[in-house]
Amino acid sequence: MIRLTSYLNDAWHQGQGPTRPLVDPSTGQTLAETTTAGLDIKAALTHARTVGGPALRALSFADRGALLKAMSRALHKHREALIDVSMANNGATRGDAKFDVDGATGTLAWYASLGRRLGDAHFLLDGDAERLSQGARFVGQHVRLPRPGVAVHINAFNFPAWGTFEKIAVSILAGVPVLTKPATATALVAWQMARIVLEECDLPPGSLSFLAGPAQDLLAHLGPQDLLAFTGSAQTGSKLRAAAMAAPGSVRVNVEADSLNAAVLGPDVAPGDDIWAAFLRNVVKDLVQKTGQKCTAVRRVLVPAHHLDDVVAALKEELAQVVVGDPRAPGVTMGPVATAAQLRDARAGIRRLSDQAQVVLGGTDRPDSTALKGVTAGKGFFIAPTLLVARNARAATQVHRHEVFGPCATVLPYAGATDGSTGNTATEAAEIVALGQGSLVSTVYTNDRDWLGDFLLQAGPWNGRVMAISKKVADQATPPGMVLPSCVHGGPGRAGGGEELGGLRGLDFYTNRVAVQGDRGLLKKILGEA
Amino acid sequence: MIRLTSYLNDAWHQGQGPTRPLVDPSTGQTLAETTTAGLDIKAALTHARTVGGPALRALSFADRGALLKAMSRALHKHREALIDVSMANNGATRGDAKFDVDGATGTLAWYASLGRRLGDAHFLLDGDAERLSQGARFVGQHVRLPRPGVAVHINAFNFPAWGTFEKIAVSILAGVPVLTKPATATALVAWQMARIVLEECDLPPGSLSFLAGPAQDLLAHLGPQDLLAFTGSAQTGSKLRAAAMAAPGSVRVNVEADSLNAAVLGPDVAPGDDIWAAFLRNVVKDLVQKTGQKCTAVRRVLVPAHHLDDVVAALKEELAQVVVGDPRAPGVTMGPVATAAQLRDARAGIRRLSDQAQVVLGGTDRPDSTALKGVTAGKGFFIAPTLLVARNARAATQVHRHEVFGPCATVLPYAGATDGSTGNTATEAAEIVALGQGSLVSTVYTNDRDWLGDFLLQAGPWNGRVMAISKKVADQATPPGMVLPSCVHGGPGRAGGGEELGGLRGLDFYTNRVAVQGDRGLLKKILGEA
Repeated sequence: MIRLTSYLNDAWHQGQGPTRPLVDPSTGQTLAETTTAGLDIKAALTHARTVGGPALRALSFADRGALLKAMSRALHKHREALIDVSMANNGATRGDAKFDVDGATGTLAWYASLGRRLGDAHFLLDGDAERLSQGARFVGQHVRLPRPGVAVHINAFNFPAWGTFEKIAVSILAGVPVLTKPATATALVAWQMARIVLEECDLPPGSLSFLAGPAQDLLAHLGPQDLLAFTGSAQTGSKLRAAAMAAPGSVRVNVEADSLNAAVLGPDVAPGDDIWAAFLRNVVKDLVQKTGQKCTAVRRVLVPAHHLDDVVAALKEELAQVVVGDPRAPGVTMGPVATAAQLRDARAGIRRLSDQAQVVLGGTDRPDSTALKGVTAGKGFFIAPTLLVARNARAATQVHRHEVFGPCATVLPYAGATDGSTGNTATEAAEIVALGQGSLVSTVYTNDRDWLGDFLLQAGPWNGRVMAISKKVADQATPPGMVLPSCVHGGPGRAGGGEELGGLRGLDFYTNRVAVQGDRGLLKKILGEA
Repeated sequence: MIRLTSYLNDAWHQGQGPTRPLVDPSTGQTLAETTTAGLDIKAALTHARTVGGPALRALSFADRGALLKAMSRALHKHREALIDVSMANNGATRGDAKFDVDGATGTLAWYASLGRRLGDAHFLLDGDAERLSQGARFVGQHVRLPRPGVAVHINAFNFPAWGTFEKIAVSILAGVPVLTKPATATALVAWQMARIVLEECDLPPGSLSFLAGPAQDLLAHLGPQDLLAFTGSAQTGSKLRAAAMAAPGSVRVNVEADSLNAAVLGPDVAPGDDIWAAFLRNVVKDLVQKTGQKCTAVRRVLVPAHHLDDVVAALKEELAQVVVGDPRAPGVTMGPVATAAQLRDARAGIRRLSDQAQVVLGGTDRPDSTALKGVTAGKGFFIAPTLLVARNARAATQVHRHEVFGPCATVLPYAGATDGSTGNTATEAAEIVALGQGSLVSTVYTNDRDWLGDFLLQAGPWNGRVMAISKKVADQATPPGMVLPSCVHGGPGRAGGGEELGGLRGLDFYTNRVAVQGDRGLLKKILGEA
């Protein structure tokens, strides 16, 4: 039995106390166990702040980028082993596992190259020097300096590889040491990756700590320059935020939480069009990939009322091809959900939605044994791709409120078919999107520029990201569920109100903006040229 | 007796219930009274969101800027009357009153001109379009769209004019309607100003609401796109933040709170130097201006140990010239503090500091009647300019923890005179500044470039703003306590972790950043050129 360890104070430690199991969700077998009881987390945070912070701040962006490059390379070298671990502990198909692991190495590499571009600087200038008084000499120059604290990362179970390392990449590049904590149930791949980079990458002392399991009293020890970046449920997010607020000073918190992402088929798109096919392909991908356990996966599919039946029929046909089972069995295209608790929650969620929507495919029952490939009867946390239809989009309040974190989406009509229609279908679609009270991403499929413009400006503020698929990009667009390092990831309201990545923008969270006022020539010599 | 009214739902309303008095702090006389009991604040917020928001978002930046310009002009027209009100309700000297009132009109005018520069656009582009996949067509363009919510502004008692309108300026320019609430005790000038702009400026319906007194159930009605900007004590800030966190969604909160601002005299500066004089002038100004009731006023004066006695002697001599009294009496250079509660708090604070520091001027006693000009014996909330000295800078923990919000500062030596000296005096000074756990502003006086560079990079992240006074700018620099619209105002940690103003940067708080992904040509047509 593997026993996970935690890397604190630049050494691996084992907790002492009752352990929690890490399970293979396809078989129910326990793969490993861990505990963090008795670990001195407070000392680890102090060590990160006092040793890791100064060490990272002494490096240039190029140097920090080189660390990220080394991490990316080291992890890539172990790619096959990591994919196997992900398949075992996450119930991921090989494709899903690659999505997670390659997402980690890719994001590290992306920020490594940003570090190279930023070169010898140790901090960022923010805008130009501006004259502040009548004379030309007295100016204000804003800079962004790394926060002299520690960044605590609390990650979600669904992306143990990518989630852990996309946050590490940005934090390290900014010059801020990290204590990262994966979700316990799927921590195995994150632990393996932490071991690899800590053994092979010559990271500065104190720059990376790893807590393999429950957070214990972690939040009680955060100080005024510390940061807390959380990805997970809105409920846990609220709890963590409240705990961070109770800490002295103003711990900076970033939350990325529940999201009722939407796909919106424009009124101009007809069956058989290029973008009709892209729309179907993307919706199906979001349901099936990682068994729907993506924070960016579509949960609400808005279609013009006159195409509702066509869309439902087409989605049912595509989803009927999905082969559910143990991802290691040949031909399987969708694995189990990651834990027994997730299975329970997903089923409860489908029941909740089905009060207001009709299940037209799948549902809460375990798929027939004959339909599950490579699975022992009664074992594993399997659920079928599930499609619901709510014929009154606005009245289906649960659909806009409750995120079923599994292979599940609800089709909703707009364009006259719902109450409260204003006559403008772009406004109507945007209003329905906004009923979700804040999402990570919505995707709209249209070739109608005016309609798109209307929709974008109204739905925009309710999303962290809006993807517009039109004819010319239908074939080259990345899948809507894919988070790219160059674009911000996060969303308002229910989605947590946070922001990650976005290239340089991601460094904002980890740095303090300071207005430096003084003599133009002197500041230029000290701070560098804008 | 003046009875204040609240502007909600585009009409003036009077609360029903027990009132609170607004007092003249020089005489103790009640000037006005107010209550907000029974007002329908929930309906007012809905009105702002549903009527004010769309109206403002329909305007271009130039149009919104024109509204600010109109407000600035209207208020300036009533300048003399407003100064009189400020002198009466705030105990402000004429200079203090002008600082507050002209700060409001000046900031409105500054943002009006920014609006003119931004022109016909309705929202901001954030960076350039970036290629996201192999083909050149599929790109990501970040935009900043106004939040479709309402901005609630809760302001401090000390700057009823500037505090209210610097926030209004940024919010309205961003396209977000405002409900603003002054501190009750000094609300008179804010109420007069709100009446002026609401009567004379033709603001779009729903764009500005005014709550003249306690917030009642205000925070319970905030939603996921709403904003809360608070200026005041760290204690109230924490309470408001917790309440906002309890609201559904993720209310965005900005807090500007307690701050142990510092002035640091460099080791190279000798008595008689240009910047020695600037240092003394600025420290004295911060103590006396607005009776020390500025969030940016210096509270800790760090001087090289070998100059400690010279500095104390010089400050005592300057402060001895201050004439305390009713600001309307001739020759008075410093008025009372604003309320009986402030007087109590300031006295308690001085007592707290004097456990670890020696009072060398002033103190907790009411100044002699003979020393108070134009004041009836026993009336008014007067306190003397108070200077303390703590000979062990690091050991005086209260000095780094407790902000006395009055005409009070503590002189602290560095450079070998304190425990834990590292030998590098810039590092030592920065470490002592950092003991404040986050400040709005620190000012450093030096001509030594290397020393300044060392200090800036170490003290920088502990401040929202650092001012460097060197020979060449000693005469043209703005006073350190002055907040300029072009530089960010806020600070980490104890100072609340917020950010206001900073030119365009101020609009970040009121807008949502959205990554729009799609066809380069199409997005350019819809969103405009970067």
